[in-house]
Amino acid sequence: MTKMKAAVFVEPGRIVLDDKPIPDVGPLDALIRITTTTMCGTDVHILKGEYPVAKGLTIGHEPVGIIEKLGAAVTGFNKGQRVIAGAITPSGYSNACQCGRASQDGPGTRHGWKSMGGWKFGNTIDGCQAEYVLVPDAMGNLAPVPDALSDEQVLMCPDIMSTGFGGAEKGGIKIGDVVVVFAQGPIGLCVTAGARLLGASAIIAVDRLPERPEMAPRLGADHVIDFSRVNPVDEIIRLTDGRGVDVAIEALGTQATFEACLRVLRPGGTLSSLGVFSSDLKIPLDAFAAGLGDHTIVTSLCPGGNERMRRLMSIIESGRVDLSALVTHRFKLDDIEEAYDLFANQRDGVFKVAITP
Amino acid sequence: MTKMKAAVFVEPGRIVLDDKPIPDVGPLDALIRITTTTMCGTDVHILKGEYPVAKGLTIGHEPVGIIEKLGAAVTGFNKGQRVIAGAITPSGYSNACQCGRASQDGPGTRHGWKSMGGWKFGNTIDGCQAEYVLVPDAMGNLAPVPDALSDEQVLMCPDIMSTGFGGAEKGGIKIGDVVVVFAQGPIGLCVTAGARLLGASAIIAVDRLPERPEMAPRLGADHVIDFSRVNPVDEIIRLTDGRGVDVAIEALGTQATFEACLRVLRPGGTLSSLGVFSSDLKIPLDAFAAGLGDHTIVTSLCPGGNERMRRLMSIIESGRVDLSALVTHRFKLDDIEEAYDLFANQRDGVFKVAITP
Amino acid sequence: MTKMKAAVFVEPGRIVLDDKPIPDVGPLDALIRITTTTMCGTDVHILKGEYPVAKGLTIGHEPVGIIEKLGAAVTGFNKGQRVIAGAITPSGYSNACQCGRASQDGPGTRHGWKSMGGWKFGNTIDGCQAEYVLVPDAMGNLAPVPDALSDEQVLMCPDIMSTGFGGAEKGGIKIGDVVVVFAQGPIGLCVTAGARLLGASAIIAVDRLPERPEMAPRLGADHVIDFSRVNPVDEIIRLTDGRGVDVAIEALGTQATFEACLRVLRPGGTLSSLGVFSSDLKIPLDAFAAGLGDHTIVTSLCPGGNERMRRLMSIIESGRVDLSALVTHRFKLDDIEEAYDLFANQRDGVFKVAITP
Amino acid sequence: MTKMKAAVFVEPGRIVLDDKPIPDVGPLDALIRITTTTMCGTDVHILKGEYPVAKGLTIGHEPVGIIEKLGAAVTGFNKGQRVIAGAITPSGYSNACQCGRASQDGPGTRHGWKSMGGWKFGNTIDGCQAEYVLVPDAMGNLAPVPDALSDEQVLMCPDIMSTGFGGAEKGGIKIGDVVVVFAQGPIGLCVTAGARLLGASAIIAVDRLPERPEMAPRLGADHVIDFSRVNPVDEIIRLTDGRGVDVAIEALGTQATFEACLRVLRPGGTLSSLGVFSSDLKIPLDAFAAGLGDHTIVTSLCPGGNERMRRLMSIIESGRVDLSALVTHRFKLDDIEEAYDLFANQRDGVFKVAITP
Repeated sequence: MTKMKAAVFVEPGRIVLDDKPIPDVGPLDALIRITTTTMCGTDVHILKGEYPVAKGLTIGHEPVGIIEKLGAAVTGFNKGQRVIAGAITPSGYSNACQCGRASQDGPGTRHGWKSMGGWKFGNTIDGCQAEYVLVPDAMGNLAPVPDALSDEQVLMCPDIMSTGFGGAEKGGIKIGDVVVVFAQGPIGLCVTAGARLLGASAIIAVDRLPERPEMAPRLGADHVIDFSRVNPVDEIIRLTDGRGVDVAIEALGTQATFEACLRVLRPGGTLSSLGVFSSDLKIPLDAFAAGLGDHTIVTSLCPGGNERMRRLMSIIESGRVDLSALVTHRFKLDDIEEAYDLFANQRDGVFKVAITP
Repeated sequence: MTKMKAAVFVEPGRIVLDDKPIPDVGPLDALIRITTTTMCGTDVHILKGEYPVAKGLTIGHEPVGIIEKLGAAVTGFNKGQRVIAGAITPSGYSNACQCGRASQDGPGTRHGWKSMGGWKFGNTIDGCQAEYVLVPDAMGNLAPVPDALSDEQVLMCPDIMSTGFGGAEKGGIKIGDVVVVFAQGPIGLCVTAGARLLGASAIIAVDRLPERPEMAPRLGADHVIDFSRVNPVDEIIRLTDGRGVDVAIEALGTQATFEACLRVLRPGGTLSSLGVFSSDLKIPLDAFAAGLGDHTIVTSLCPGGNERMRRLMSIIESGRVDLSALVTHRFKLDDIEEAYDLFANQRDGVFKVAITP
Repeated sequence: MTKMKAAVFVEPGRIVLDDKPIPDVGPLDALIRITTTTMCGTDVHILKGEYPVAKGLTIGHEPVGIIEKLGAAVTGFNKGQRVIAGAITPSGYSNACQCGRASQDGPGTRHGWKSMGGWKFGNTIDGCQAEYVLVPDAMGNLAPVPDALSDEQVLMCPDIMSTGFGGAEKGGIKIGDVVVVFAQGPIGLCVTAGARLLGASAIIAVDRLPERPEMAPRLGADHVIDFSRVNPVDEIIRLTDGRGVDVAIEALGTQATFEACLRVLRPGGTLSSLGVFSSDLKIPLDAFAAGLGDHTIVTSLCPGGNERMRRLMSIIESGRVDLSALVTHRFKLDDIEEAYDLFANQRDGVFKVAITP
Repeated sequence: MTKMKAAVFVEPGRIVLDDKPIPDVGPLDALIRITTTTMCGTDVHILKGEYPVAKGLTIGHEPVGIIEKLGAAVTGFNKGQRVIAGAITPSGYSNACQCGRASQDGPGTRHGWKSMGGWKFGNTIDGCQAEYVLVPDAMGNLAPVPDALSDEQVLMCPDIMSTGFGGAEKGGIKIGDVVVVFAQGPIGLCVTAGARLLGASAIIAVDRLPERPEMAPRLGADHVIDFSRVNPVDEIIRLTDGRGVDVAIEALGTQATFEACLRVLRPGGTLSSLGVFSSDLKIPLDAFAAGLGDHTIVTSLCPGGNERMRRLMSIIESGRVDLSALVTHRFKLDDIEEAYDLFANQRDGVFKVAITP
């Protein structure tokens, strides 16, 4: 058997299931037979042509599967092991990796100039909405899944759990901090869970009245603000007795939420931004205290690598955080076009879908 | 004697020398007889009415002098000691001080909502362009001057040395970093000296062809770019072989320099912003990598307090950094209106002036 | 009324309830009428003469009470407010406070040479096992108690909660870390709660089979090792598949526990030591990897100050952590000698006692 | 040609030059033709049998040379490039590398239990006192040498410069810190240079009256204490007006220096330990403030990897630090036994030797 099925980007508006050859395995690679994968808001941007990728590319960056074949230089793993890999697959050996910004690593970027180089799956190389995927730099990126955990339990680790927790970590949350999270989609919900895990004493979640209003509190939110009913800035200032929040986290990618974060931040506070923006941003002079407020704004791309995956799975295994409720729909790979239709249009209260070849 | 001379803000365009009563000393205060002080770009903003202060306020926030009288609750200091105090005078006991953002402390801001509360001299209380100044929370803010150092040698400690070094520190400069500093006015020159002190392996200074082209290199710059002759972004990318800089520091307060900092920053790099901005800022989408570049933007207000002053004076005393060349002109307090005229118009190659009552 | 009752150190072996004058209020002080207090292992060291204090000193460093009188220079508080103060009362204005080691601040230690200077109550000044206590540097140390919280709910904030959480914080616990806590007395239990709050994915608690075996798991321990039945080092290495722990926390103060911490630590791991030692310590060469293991050993004294207390109370108020079960016995101040007898001899399963004047 | 000359450990007391086969190149390796190398105190420990290695092993861990051949999976480098590699060669892909303790990485230590796993050259694999050396995980470890730098100029980068600077970095030196460095051998001198580079305002170097008393001051020491003439603890306390030092760095590996570091440390200070110890260490109770002094003790192994080497060479190239004076003697590889004799006996004022095949 040399052919496999894969969800391929054809042109803006069209991702179709097609046949592709099963890829050859280079010395540093591992070939993984996908058992479960998912899709993500970024994939919808690709579908709509808002984020450009090469025609013919296989989409998807959240692999759970079984090692089928290992490259000649790969040691420490065995055929048949169940593994995940992060959405971001840093090499480990680049300068970027070695100075603490592994997510910005990538081919042709030895000196790290190009951003997002660590995001390869479904971006610069074939992704994992397919029967097989090739994991580059396998030794640094494969992470064995503990037997006690199901595929669906670890399905959020490669991207949204790592991204959301990363946003909370980059916010520098300390014991007793008050934290606001703008937007409670899948990533925002993971931020909420991460903020809870890091010792915030109050977590304020902001979104429109959610279909399932119980999701944010279940993952750790203390207060939920429906921005369609009240002005969230005023409400947050009121909730904090005029003090503002210690850390504000943006998980949507709009001017409105970015700006609201700045407006509710106390002097010396941190804005951790996770959203993917699609236009220039404005920093209002007053919200920025004219540059004298000891503010920090930090952005981040999803952290990857085997150690990151190991740690996130250990959190799932410990029972500290349960993200399984985020999987609201399940599809066969054969029906992935239908899954895209549902997910891109956010129908039927979908949070995340599980896709199984 | 109950009267003293003081430089008072009358209305936009007018700071005049006037008589005021020597202030009463509250329990936590110290009355300092000023022996040397200076003026700062912020004072010029006040003069021009661009930064509002109360009419009748004494201007100035860089005091060097002799303790004349101590409040009833002040211990650990003696009348007659020569001291400085920082431009920013945190109380030490506020919540803001106790969670690491002392500069944002201030009256009426127990919970830290209002920014810049730590800046009191010549902002919310009478300043030090006068014969006497009252230092609030004296125990936390008075710092004895070592005998070996002259007034002029420590004159930059209260504001521009603390601000400039703070900008380098907040940039998180590590051994071997490449750093760019936009603008080489007095604060930018202190950033350059601070970046050198922190182990940067290359410091690129950007300004118009300076009157004294030797100043930036003397304080530690390896490269000086004249932005009136070359495009600084292109030149910095060229100098770094396309890699970009690890840390970019903004010391002017304009959209152009802020944006240029973002454009020369490597993925994962830090923009440390010191400038006082006067309008909204724009973050270009591409320079921000759509929010996915692992960038950090950090602003800061001048760090104050007695320990900060002690440390800065120890750097001067060690001979590591010599800022005395920054004092280009000297005036009597009686001639301060003339000093403002020279300084506000940046005539005669002025960097900083020393003013002696 | 000018007299009050106070528990006074008379000589090794004798702490007695005696009459003392209600103290005069200096300009920076606040006089607090104690409503609830407790005792601590350190007080037992004092009782036994193992830690020397002046004869006649009032013992106790965990005050909950009502503001009775404020010093002339104290602003921002009102008579009648219910407050706590930390066991450690940093001034806020010393050099030590201003360079991030407030607990080491104290009278006569402007330059911070003397250790533990921040611990004043029941050590260098009269403490709070009394009807009244004088809080020094009141503005930096008084923290209003939220109405929703009872005295007993905040009784652990001044010392053991701050100490225990501090030990977890100093350990630098990160999401997914495996943490061991040696000893599960009151402080060790607070370490366990703090480690849980900071995102550890597995917490291993070590002690002798506890009287109430449910306490450690209730506060967050995943595994409890009874060192009287198994070798804890072997067991921890087994539990971590030979990997060792990321952070080991010592909460007893013996060579055996300190050494066991080193032996279970992975290369690059951190030993956070909270115990009060009573003899020289030995670092075994092998456990220390001959000095080449990238290990960190960090000690800490209880963090104090108003902001710390505010944050800890916000954790209690949020319901994240419930320490009320630690109060196992209650006494009137009149019966404090009986309380010492019970507590010093660890009878009747005592964890902490509440004492009410 | 398939044979090469190599300095081989035969038995305690004997390292001899012998013929060995030029090694085969695995897929991740690079074969380097050595042009310059050196020897180190650790090699003398091996020679004397104090540190055990396998008989027949080639010694040496400081390679400068030319790429002769690249493994099949290695990209980004070319035959003929001049490169260095660090003494420690982390893989980049291990869990240890990915959680910030790359030096502790190594074969068989996926979970990082074994210490010093990152030190491979002349320890667990053949080293570089030879005509050729095989660099493992070449992509993460080869660093091209700038044309402007000679072999001797970069010869200290692989080990003592990285180790010494690392000790200063791990000490957390901040602007204005007072730092003491115990021992001014080659590593201690590099600590002194690193402390200067990081902004210490006073550096106190302690050693016996050196043969070349000018070396420590030339690399940045402000004070040099001859411990054979004065008690260094007393002298340091005197020099710091009783305050103690902020950071104490141990670069020898004895109880006396380790203990002296603790005794001169201010509360809240950091002891950064670099020495290789050969027996258990004692922490005196008083010097440790019974565990309540907010002290930090940190050990470290030399940081390696391509990015570290790139940064260190950029410091040399900038002229910030000049270590060339440390090379006091030069030998041909053919005369390496003579070099060992000189170096092991510290004759003729030797600091470091350069060895050229």
